[in-house]
Amino acid sequence: MIEVLLAGGCGFIGSHLADRLCRRNDVSRIVVVDNLWTGRIENLSAIDDIRVEFVRADVEHFKSDTQFDEIYHLASPASPPWYMAQPLRTISANVLGAMNLLGMLKPGGVICYTSTSEVYGDPLVNPQPESYRGSVDCTGPRSSYDESKRCVEAMLFGASNVHGTRVKVARLFNVYGPRTRPDDGRAVSNFITQALRGEPLTVYGDGSQSRSWGHIDDIVDGLERYFWSDGTDYSGPLNIGNDREISVLEVAQFINASFPGSPIVFLPPVPQDPTNRRPDLTLCNQVLPGWKCQIPYEEGVLRSVDWFRREMRL
Amino acid sequence: MIEVLLAGGCGFIGSHLADRLCRRNDVSRIVVVDNLWTGRIENLSAIDDIRVEFVRADVEHFKSDTQFDEIYHLASPASPPWYMAQPLRTISANVLGAMNLLGMLKPGGVICYTSTSEVYGDPLVNPQPESYRGSVDCTGPRSSYDESKRCVEAMLFGASNVHGTRVKVARLFNVYGPRTRPDDGRAVSNFITQALRGEPLTVYGDGSQSRSWGHIDDIVDGLERYFWSDGTDYSGPLNIGNDREISVLEVAQFINASFPGSPIVFLPPVPQDPTNRRPDLTLCNQVLPGWKCQIPYEEGVLRSVDWFRREMRL
Repeated sequence: MIEVLLAGGCGFIGSHLADRLCRRNDVSRIVVVDNLWTGRIENLSAIDDIRVEFVRADVEHFKSDTQFDEIYHLASPASPPWYMAQPLRTISANVLGAMNLLGMLKPGGVICYTSTSEVYGDPLVNPQPESYRGSVDCTGPRSSYDESKRCVEAMLFGASNVHGTRVKVARLFNVYGPRTRPDDGRAVSNFITQALRGEPLTVYGDGSQSRSWGHIDDIVDGLERYFWSDGTDYSGPLNIGNDREISVLEVAQFINASFPGSPIVFLPPVPQDPTNRRPDLTLCNQVLPGWKCQIPYEEGVLRSVDWFRREMRL
Repeated sequence: MIEVLLAGGCGFIGSHLADRLCRRNDVSRIVVVDNLWTGRIENLSAIDDIRVEFVRADVEHFKSDTQFDEIYHLASPASPPWYMAQPLRTISANVLGAMNLLGMLKPGGVICYTSTSEVYGDPLVNPQPESYRGSVDCTGPRSSYDESKRCVEAMLFGASNVHGTRVKVARLFNVYGPRTRPDDGRAVSNFITQALRGEPLTVYGDGSQSRSWGHIDDIVDGLERYFWSDGTDYSGPLNIGNDREISVLEVAQFINASFPGSPIVFLPPVPQDPTNRRPDLTLCNQVLPGWKCQIPYEEGVLRSVDWFRREMRL
């Protein structure tokens, strides 16, 4: 039976991955490690499974005598206001975290990492294939996140190439949906929480910057298939995201139309906010045939509103 | 009086920086930390200074009760064959090393880091200004080095921007000269050691790839001025290198002409070997007015030959 370590399992995406791991019957133990920096213990409240053990610890300091068969490293803040406020802690969680986790991997086991489209920076090609080397300012305000993700990729592919370690690296594009922190700070959740409070929707810059919004249910379907259910050995990197590219302003206008009490206001642009982001899914279509994001943002947003309303006790 | 920590002080560049630190009369203590992975204790043999303490330790595991006024982080392999063989250790020395060193910095102290032109990857612009974001394959064979350097830059600029830490980041271009390991594996030292042994000079690919060879004496002059003697507070990144761009083949031909017993042979190209590399020194000319590499490679090579001959006991 398989022993699994899930780092960052109380986070937005991590907790959804925990739900999926609990559906497996080949797993005997799921150790969830989270320091509850941006993750929240409530995100595991739907889980009632004796195989799940929660350990409150920093991923980079967690120790265990177990050698795990499968390790999932999702322990990182993902929201710019959060990681920009604590750049060293962000690098530590990702890079020192990955180094620590590698030491707990059973020989022959697999370590899976959720990297990010931020490795492409403010991309000069659109859409972005995995081979695109990116345009990241390694001295800039977003660099603690971007560069630590890139560095962990280098670490894992180095481990794979030199030591034969089995790795899987997914590059996630923008994800939204239930269990996003209401104070996360990214556009979709911002707009929903603002609309529910009857506040103006805050658009940074002119709103023409585009994103590829993937609903969490779609994204976790892709992760589940890539990480374990499809049986692929492809080490990545693999883009996983929605290739329908939408401007921030369009999302604001849709939410404004649904919640007419919330006008759109424009604030100064965020420094080094990428102007565009869209995954090239050519490789993904080969590795995960038939998978794609099914939920249009209009539906996904409305499906998320109920969760945010309960969460905010409105 | 100033207490200094020099990590990697037994290395090629680190030991030359140690020599320069010993010339200062405002320093009371110089702790040299080196694990002698690629550094060599003999590189300190010219130093006879009671202020210098050598500690054999990994930079990422070294502990001290001292809070240092100045910390210099030069603890990293710099030669592709060396770092490609041990990617995790390379990342650990740079990134975990920098994290550890930051914890030993006295409030108000300064941490100085030797980054690299490798942050530019295989550059699509020539010469490379500091603002160029680079073209690094974060999954490629050189990525453990390139990405750990980029990640440490992100860490230091994050510490500077968020916590007000004083940092100085130099991006060094190719450096050669005495105290390069004879088994270092880079072009100039390869050619010299091959010529001294009467072996063929091995050129990878067609030799048209260019580099900007800076003699160690010139480069350490620049580092000394930037890090302490000029009194600048500029945090970097700052290109330091020779902007005379020379092909690998030209250097081989020059050494072949000086040592006619060693013919040039061509070997398959090294994967992802950058095709060109030349610093844009506009910023450097402002920050370090009057500094530039003075020693032409023809003279620098010949000045290095005696050292290599003694070193190889030929």
